[in-house]
Amino acid sequence: MPAQRGLGVAVIGTGKMGADHVRRLHDVISGARVAAVADIEAERAKSLAATIDGCTAYTDPAAAMASGEVDAVLIASPGPAHEAALIEALGRDLPVLCEKPMTPDTASCLRVLEAERRLGRRRIQVGFMRRYDSEYVKLKGLLDGGELGRALMLHQRHRNLAMPPGFTDDMLITSSVAHEVDATRWLLGQEIVAVAVHRPAPSSLAPAGMNDPQFVLFETASGALVDVEIFGHCGYGYQVQAEAVCERGTVRIGDEQGPRVSVDGRWGGHVPPDYVERFEDAYDREVQAWVDATRRGEVTGPSAWDGYAAAAVCEAGVVSQREGGRAEVELIERPAFYG
Amino acid sequence: MPAQRGLGVAVIGTGKMGADHVRRLHDVISGARVAAVADIEAERAKSLAATIDGCTAYTDPAAAMASGEVDAVLIASPGPAHEAALIEALGRDLPVLCEKPMTPDTASCLRVLEAERRLGRRRIQVGFMRRYDSEYVKLKGLLDGGELGRALMLHQRHRNLAMPPGFTDDMLITSSVAHEVDATRWLLGQEIVAVAVHRPAPSSLAPAGMNDPQFVLFETASGALVDVEIFGHCGYGYQVQAEAVCERGTVRIGDEQGPRVSVDGRWGGHVPPDYVERFEDAYDREVQAWVDATRRGEVTGPSAWDGYAAAAVCEAGVVSQREGGRAEVELIERPAFYG
Amino acid sequence: MPAQRGLGVAVIGTGKMGADHVRRLHDVISGARVAAVADIEAERAKSLAATIDGCTAYTDPAAAMASGEVDAVLIASPGPAHEAALIEALGRDLPVLCEKPMTPDTASCLRVLEAERRLGRRRIQVGFMRRYDSEYVKLKGLLDGGELGRALMLHQRHRNLAMPPGFTDDMLITSSVAHEVDATRWLLGQEIVAVAVHRPAPSSLAPAGMNDPQFVLFETASGALVDVEIFGHCGYGYQVQAEAVCERGTVRIGDEQGPRVSVDGRWGGHVPPDYVERFEDAYDREVQAWVDATRRGEVTGPSAWDGYAAAAVCEAGVVSQREGGRAEVELIERPAFYG
Amino acid sequence: MPAQRGLGVAVIGTGKMGADHVRRLHDVISGARVAAVADIEAERAKSLAATIDGCTAYTDPAAAMASGEVDAVLIASPGPAHEAALIEALGRDLPVLCEKPMTPDTASCLRVLEAERRLGRRRIQVGFMRRYDSEYVKLKGLLDGGELGRALMLHQRHRNLAMPPGFTDDMLITSSVAHEVDATRWLLGQEIVAVAVHRPAPSSLAPAGMNDPQFVLFETASGALVDVEIFGHCGYGYQVQAEAVCERGTVRIGDEQGPRVSVDGRWGGHVPPDYVERFEDAYDREVQAWVDATRRGEVTGPSAWDGYAAAAVCEAGVVSQREGGRAEVELIERPAFYG
Repeated sequence: MPAQRGLGVAVIGTGKMGADHVRRLHDVISGARVAAVADIEAERAKSLAATIDGCTAYTDPAAAMASGEVDAVLIASPGPAHEAALIEALGRDLPVLCEKPMTPDTASCLRVLEAERRLGRRRIQVGFMRRYDSEYVKLKGLLDGGELGRALMLHQRHRNLAMPPGFTDDMLITSSVAHEVDATRWLLGQEIVAVAVHRPAPSSLAPAGMNDPQFVLFETASGALVDVEIFGHCGYGYQVQAEAVCERGTVRIGDEQGPRVSVDGRWGGHVPPDYVERFEDAYDREVQAWVDATRRGEVTGPSAWDGYAAAAVCEAGVVSQREGGRAEVELIERPAFYG
Repeated sequence: MPAQRGLGVAVIGTGKMGADHVRRLHDVISGARVAAVADIEAERAKSLAATIDGCTAYTDPAAAMASGEVDAVLIASPGPAHEAALIEALGRDLPVLCEKPMTPDTASCLRVLEAERRLGRRRIQVGFMRRYDSEYVKLKGLLDGGELGRALMLHQRHRNLAMPPGFTDDMLITSSVAHEVDATRWLLGQEIVAVAVHRPAPSSLAPAGMNDPQFVLFETASGALVDVEIFGHCGYGYQVQAEAVCERGTVRIGDEQGPRVSVDGRWGGHVPPDYVERFEDAYDREVQAWVDATRRGEVTGPSAWDGYAAAAVCEAGVVSQREGGRAEVELIERPAFYG
Repeated sequence: MPAQRGLGVAVIGTGKMGADHVRRLHDVISGARVAAVADIEAERAKSLAATIDGCTAYTDPAAAMASGEVDAVLIASPGPAHEAALIEALGRDLPVLCEKPMTPDTASCLRVLEAERRLGRRRIQVGFMRRYDSEYVKLKGLLDGGELGRALMLHQRHRNLAMPPGFTDDMLITSSVAHEVDATRWLLGQEIVAVAVHRPAPSSLAPAGMNDPQFVLFETASGALVDVEIFGHCGYGYQVQAEAVCERGTVRIGDEQGPRVSVDGRWGGHVPPDYVERFEDAYDREVQAWVDATRRGEVTGPSAWDGYAAAAVCEAGVVSQREGGRAEVELIERPAFYG
Repeated sequence: MPAQRGLGVAVIGTGKMGADHVRRLHDVISGARVAAVADIEAERAKSLAATIDGCTAYTDPAAAMASGEVDAVLIASPGPAHEAALIEALGRDLPVLCEKPMTPDTASCLRVLEAERRLGRRRIQVGFMRRYDSEYVKLKGLLDGGELGRALMLHQRHRNLAMPPGFTDDMLITSSVAHEVDATRWLLGQEIVAVAVHRPAPSSLAPAGMNDPQFVLFETASGALVDVEIFGHCGYGYQVQAEAVCERGTVRIGDEQGPRVSVDGRWGGHVPPDYVERFEDAYDREVQAWVDATRRGEVTGPSAWDGYAAAAVCEAGVVSQREGGRAEVELIERPAFYG
């Protein structure tokens, strides 16, 4: 690819997340340019493309990828559209950064794995951006450094101010806890083998009929126990926190930081309202790392296998939600292809 | 009782905890004096009594309580000796502060409840000192204040540097988690109805054969979900932390405080080695509050019912430990006598 | 003195501070009882005495001290009355805890020193309670431990919600900064040799004509530089903080602690409104330590020399306030009597 | 300039700072490319240029600027070389980001101001990167928001692990405190009118003959009082902290953050060793903001006037260091040109 002109990226999907990635690639990231955008809403794609020199709008993702200006693909369309776009990109041997979930279920994930295996080289990175959050990176370094011994437990909190209308109980798992699934697998370096979802009496401030919050337990292959508080309507802001309990020490991340203000009889600071503010830097680092690796001809982030494994854990979680009790995670044997 | 001379207390048991209470009553507490000490190890009782003007040593708790100088009893003997001492004190209509556990099992607890009911007035306070820790008190105030809404979940951490030799898996519940049982019941103002104990792969630094750490879930009568990390050999100090998740906000207590030192490439402070340092002020406040209430003719702290309920929850916990899964807590109907 | 009955204390002055000490001696402190109270407002003394068994009210401090029930004296009357009460107590060879300031000026302080020297043994402790605050004690331990090297600078903050009517610029020094004067001398173990007071443009929320806040620099005998922000009307609470800068590390104390609440888009906690809440434990420890030492026949706290030295530094501070620039502190040579 | 190819930047000076900016422009920044590097050490420039496609090495800054590929200049050569490079860039009407100090003294600063005024439009941004640190930005927002009232005082800490050999007392002012000079002027929005430098007894761990630490007071035009602790050899890391004292509240920034680790009897975290780690994000944001503004044809950061004013305050600081006492800052009248 033309190094000097930067990596030509086609952004598939121009909703909130896609538009934010377009802005990021154009204004923040070094070594990339937005060569194409695609959206079935033609007007939305067009008006976004118009803001960027040399960017063409498409309604068909395949057409966008076919453009000679496109060296790589960023998929930010709704989850159900991911499979087709991924298969298309693999067919063209294009590197892809695909927003989570990779695809909505394990069956489709397995088709993507098979397509990538057939291509014979890894092309897909899945958008689990927490791996690029500076505190998560430091926690990972502490766990891998070994001075604290093996991780025995991992406590996680994931709180949202409120969820959009139509958000359902199972989305608490498949859309929200999916992040903790990947964080757990990545931090501990092992698969999750069982899931159990517990439901306390719901908050009266959550939508009628929704079980919110919920409390999820994971068991990992080596016997670590992981818990996740998922709260969709905590009412005060967006908080993502984790604490690793190791044999010789504990590590906590995710406390809010920044100016400490004393005023009106209290001290403290600001809780961000949403993931955009909380993880802005993580998204920037994720996309920069993807662009850098892609320009070097490498794939370094979470793989299609990680996308599949997350989907499998979430499926078990939804089973546990519906049937109660502990649900085992069923994974195919990990292909040697994914190392 | 002779107000000016202060409450005459018989301290039953002169081991580590009893001796510490003797020191506390003598040096720290206002309005009390140690009138008698009793221990089956006569020499230990004698040498302790010798340090205190007007204090007599006994080997028999009943003899100590029979002394005309004694207005109230503090029981700090081993758990199996509590029942007899409590029955003796009730027989003499003496107010008692009894270290936890009230007695080692629910059967004996029920005999104590019955004896107190027969006496016709409350005389027993059980030594759950966390109710007197300043941060726990503030947390209780915030929960009761109602501005944060109803408590939905409670996350608790209870870490010890190491346990004494002979400490067993079930003691993690009956001796350690017993504190979280009472804290939960007190903070949330309701009974625990079920317990499930989870055991991650143990730390290689715990004694061989011990499952340490463990992770305990409580369900409460109104459906709140409570989790407790109990870790007997965390290796770095003594930590007790709690976080309440309410409908409108969250509250966290138990972070270490005190001087923030920057030196040698790091910032931070000291983790206390044990409960003596961590809860010194709570013990002082507990005993002062007991002395004050006793002198006013009142009983204000955790009651015999609280001691019984804690034992019942711990018994369910041990069942869950041994049999796996969730164990329901069986409680007799709460006597009107206990309000 | 009769150990079993506890130290009989005469409390001189029954205003806010005196009444609080009466409550403390009666309800909190071990080994003491309030035997007498004295106040020129007879009714105030009488109604206070009426709440305490065996306590007699006086209008004349000397008469109170003359009571056979009195073993020691706590002076909490207005500063101008201290000298006479101290001389009276020394004349009767009674141990004294005297609220700060010891006396309002160095001339009277020197008369008190002379009286104590003539008596031939130390009897006076001055009420600089910060020496009993747990964080100050830990800071002192860190400085004395030597691992951080010599203290080079000390930054101090002293903020009040608001000052009572009639509070003047020089009282910011003589009443407020007096605490930092003693803390500095104690922490660094050396005298202050010069003072310079700086006055930024005042807050529009301070009373008209008052220069508030002010910023005070101390130079110590060995060349350490100390700064104090004194702010009488910060508007949000009472904050006392200090940071020691040593050769190998820094130590900061005084950050607010306690529950961390997340609610309404912010995290944080409570700032106490006044010194009563902030230093409640320090006052309790101070008086308990004074009672304990007195019962052992010792004097262990800040001495009359400390009271004199603080007055001398404050006098220099007022000179600097009025004349501008740096004012040297003039101290008599320290009598061997004060070690 | 050719938008699609990105802003062509000539980096003048390829020492530690220059090489870091080359890496930043190439790997991190969006919309820029390193078109040329210049250094009197030809080999250093050549080997750096060789790592970047399309980058040419020069020994003469003027020759680098004359290249048709160059749209803007980043000056990172030693301070004494800045004036000539700035005049050259202004002569070519090229936008410049010039590392601090703009030039080493006010006389040369004034020649630069005059050259820019003659050119008739602002072209120079001075590299005070703290204005781009996220916490400083939030502090600035809080001060400008007005809810805390007017800023009355500003306390600042600036600590280094150690200084390079040859670092002198006056460099503590001109090289280190220069940052606090700019931060003060920017945060408070007004000029500094006087400086007084105080020197406590030096640390025995500082180089022989060096007065380290020092304590600097600024007075601002509206009467705010500002203090700066500058410590070149604190021995434990790099710390930059600030606390603004306003009429209704205080704000503190710069406490270390990130994972809180509990291990070995202590809790806490990591202190960065140097400004590279501490201000990495600020440098990235500074250069990105400069590139963005330059591409829009704007100059938005600290101006040549800010560079001059900082030099004037530092000169007064050095006078105070040498002569003792308070030195007034002499500034020419601010040209309307600088708004």
